Amino acid sequence: MSECIFCRIAAGSLPARVVYQDDQAVAFEDVNPQAPVHLLVIPRKHIPNLLGVGEEDEALGGHLMRVACQVAREKGVAESGFRVVANINRDAGQSVDHLHLHVLGGRGLGWPPG
Amino acid sequence: MSECIFCRIAAGSLPARVVYQDDQAVAFEDVNPQAPVHLLVIPRKHIPNLLGVGEEDEALGGHLMRVACQVAREKGVAESGFRVVANINRDAGQSVDHLHLHVLGGRGLGWPPG
Repeated sequence: MSECIFCRIAAGSLPARVVYQDDQAVAFEDVNPQAPVHLLVIPRKHIPNLLGVGEEDEALGGHLMRVACQVAREKGVAESGFRVVANINRDAGQSVDHLHLHVLGGRGLGWPPG
Repeated sequence: MSECIFCRIAAGSLPARVVYQDDQAVAFEDVNPQAPVHLLVIPRKHIPNLLGVGEEDEALGGHLMRVACQVAREKGVAESGFRVVANINRDAGQSVDHLHLHVLGGRGLGWPPG
């Protein structure tokens, strides 16, 4: 079994509050939410972070963007507004080495973004 | 001529500090930088924001992610870390109605991201 916790969530072998899934992607609630809506969108494929998105993954990358929008719509924050964030490596505080897009909404989000 | 300032930058009819361009995307320096490295990555195609990325744009969306990584590498922040941010609508403070990915790096980035 994979030791990657997000691979395990994608496989259904680790519990998560999943809000969306398809053959390429899974979305679930962040366990430490920073906004009324705070979801994570991950690919089923293990990619450590955005730097690992190869040319062959471009359609997958765009699909993750569209899933982020889909779950924002389902949570009712698409019109009011939401932020999509990817953290890469130490300075950004990347905490799990499996590509994930944060989707935050339901409140005003300040600037700068961290 | 388009009234969209990012379409005009992509067309070369409005000046910007362009750091990368190809047939699909342009990257340039944010005029109000929030970090030592703060770039914007835009598609040449006019898409108002992430919600406008259709199924036919998935490869383009992933390409924008890869350009974000490419310019982060060129600016020397890929290993130290960087954050990629997309703002959608009012609550996120979206300020220009043409899809753009912010790329921030060169300092520690706090959490939450706004």
